[in-house]
Amino acid sequence: MSPRDDVRTDDVRIDDLPIRDELRGKSPYGAPQLDVPVQLNTNENPYPLPEPLVERIAERVREAARGLNRYPDRDAVELRTELARYLTRTTGYEVGAADVWAANGSNEVLQQLLQTFGGPGRLAIGFEPSYSMHGLIARGTGTGWISGPRGEDFTIDVDAAARAIARHRPDVVFITSPNNPTGTAVEAETVLALYEAAQAAKPSLVVVDEAYVEFSHRPSLLPLLQGRPHLVISRTMSKAFGAAGLRLGYLAAHPAVVDAVQLVRLPYHLSAVTQATALAALEHTDTLLGYVEQLKSERDRLVAELRAIGYEVTESDANFVQFGRFPDAHTAWRKILDRGVLVRDNGVPGWLRVTAGTPEENDAFLDAVRALKKEQSS
Amino acid sequence: MSPRDDVRTDDVRIDDLPIRDELRGKSPYGAPQLDVPVQLNTNENPYPLPEPLVERIAERVREAARGLNRYPDRDAVELRTELARYLTRTTGYEVGAADVWAANGSNEVLQQLLQTFGGPGRLAIGFEPSYSMHGLIARGTGTGWISGPRGEDFTIDVDAAARAIARHRPDVVFITSPNNPTGTAVEAETVLALYEAAQAAKPSLVVVDEAYVEFSHRPSLLPLLQGRPHLVISRTMSKAFGAAGLRLGYLAAHPAVVDAVQLVRLPYHLSAVTQATALAALEHTDTLLGYVEQLKSERDRLVAELRAIGYEVTESDANFVQFGRFPDAHTAWRKILDRGVLVRDNGVPGWLRVTAGTPEENDAFLDAVRALKKEQSS
Repeated sequence: MSPRDDVRTDDVRIDDLPIRDELRGKSPYGAPQLDVPVQLNTNENPYPLPEPLVERIAERVREAARGLNRYPDRDAVELRTELARYLTRTTGYEVGAADVWAANGSNEVLQQLLQTFGGPGRLAIGFEPSYSMHGLIARGTGTGWISGPRGEDFTIDVDAAARAIARHRPDVVFITSPNNPTGTAVEAETVLALYEAAQAAKPSLVVVDEAYVEFSHRPSLLPLLQGRPHLVISRTMSKAFGAAGLRLGYLAAHPAVVDAVQLVRLPYHLSAVTQATALAALEHTDTLLGYVEQLKSERDRLVAELRAIGYEVTESDANFVQFGRFPDAHTAWRKILDRGVLVRDNGVPGWLRVTAGTPEENDAFLDAVRALKKEQSS
Repeated sequence: MSPRDDVRTDDVRIDDLPIRDELRGKSPYGAPQLDVPVQLNTNENPYPLPEPLVERIAERVREAARGLNRYPDRDAVELRTELARYLTRTTGYEVGAADVWAANGSNEVLQQLLQTFGGPGRLAIGFEPSYSMHGLIARGTGTGWISGPRGEDFTIDVDAAARAIARHRPDVVFITSPNNPTGTAVEAETVLALYEAAQAAKPSLVVVDEAYVEFSHRPSLLPLLQGRPHLVISRTMSKAFGAAGLRLGYLAAHPAVVDAVQLVRLPYHLSAVTQATALAALEHTDTLLGYVEQLKSERDRLVAELRAIGYEVTESDANFVQFGRFPDAHTAWRKILDRGVLVRDNGVPGWLRVTAGTPEENDAFLDAVRALKKEQSS
């Protein structure tokens, strides 16, 4: 008997281990990764990086690899400078490296914020349905989670939301704009009102998650940072930059907030190859934002055609569209999958979410849901 | 006035923000990054990666960049398979991908373990002086921290350590072998005794941090995993693989432990470029382990010469050497720095730590401490 056989046959499972009680019986987060011709389930950008950028990445990583025996720049100053330049250029609101922080995906950015401003004995609130990782990262950092309200049309009702903030006095408030999975953008006035409510209640940190903002009809909420040291805008290179595989998230906020997350960030958290790759991508911003324009018109086409077919569609400012309603969304998800198209069932009763893909992928999706509609009407 | 001036002049500092109370007044972890000719302070491998490996990294990253618009393999199966192969080959103890987990540096591995097995209301213990991140990551995850005892010669006194475990009943026990900053290896018998003590007290998870094990005179403790589902061996590619800039840490443990950390790991935590770079490095294991042999003899030379000069030296199984004693270690650190050599003051009274560098770097260091000794004797 090999050692491995012996280890295997002792038949220990997760719940036999001395894990935290609140983790017992839980499952890891993650969309099903199925091998299907058309994958429109994880809001990825369907356009591969252009070949000149691929070459530039190889070049910058080759250079970084020559110094890989040394720790990376712990403060990622060059990268933060370029991210700040990108934000300034695309929003007109001037930020510098001191206002920006970066980590391995916006998930890690949010985890660092919750470790600093949330944690045991503290509370965070989000307005659901929304990005489910907000609640999961709260749980992972020991922060209590409040599921705040959202209206029937998936917008945030300011009065109801402000009342929830006043009642629960959360330490961290999440506002996702555009919201995932509904696609709904949030008005600047709503953010301002909730910021005021949050300051009156506690004061607490307000995090506006703008992962999808480049796809929005409306401008970024970044300029709201002015004079609001408890406001954070979080961003990612996964969507607009077509770099989900890179895992580069970042935030803009008052420099004191950036200083504060240094207290919990793991030292040297951002590898030299990640920094090099992100810097290469930032050199090609214009090309990548060109793809964003294509995806926005494809998104608008999906909205129009889904409505023409007879589906209800939530107004979308993102690179995905929420559509319905289905008596049983999961059955509808399965029937679309049977036609070779993978969309997402986010657990919102009656609704599914489809990512805007290439024109061909979107055609395949529209064919599938057209057939589904016919089947349901017959 | 530009927006930035306005934000700047409101003069908010960290402690004005609603951060967690236990973070107030704290400073971020990290060695001073000074621009000095000879840097022997962070236990980096002084040998840059060989050029064929640099090319292979560029090649594998170029390939990964072509699919960068998609999320990376969330489970990093190919990488875990190759890490398992490396462990099996170098220790003779057979492990597979299911027994291995990887993250952004061993710091993130340890953070995931503490989120799963530690956290609010739970305790971790380490035997200090040891790797100070163990305590800091405990704090960052809300886990209580117990500073366990170590003998005068920096070895772990089994009876004293077992008594501390019995008294505090920690949920997680850290054993660092070879230990940082002392260089001290831990006997298998010690680990076995403390594992038994920890199981009797709680049961708790025992984490053996083998970041420096490739430099040890003694074999890895990996075979102790057999039949011990609460034992974890953590490793890194930062030292022996000369890839501190890559941030690739990993662990080997019972598959149930690997399954358990999935409950807290951020989804897609490990980027496609990190996975590609690590896989390239693993193809060049033999060359890199050749550098390890050179560093081991340089380490042995440092020990011998430091003793010849008249310093006390702690027995070292790592790529660094602890030497002393100084009436005031920080003053000695500064005097060595004045001679152009940066070593580490880890706060162990009377002792400093020097990383084994290239022969030339080590000569420069030995010249500096020889001069210091003369100055002190005169």
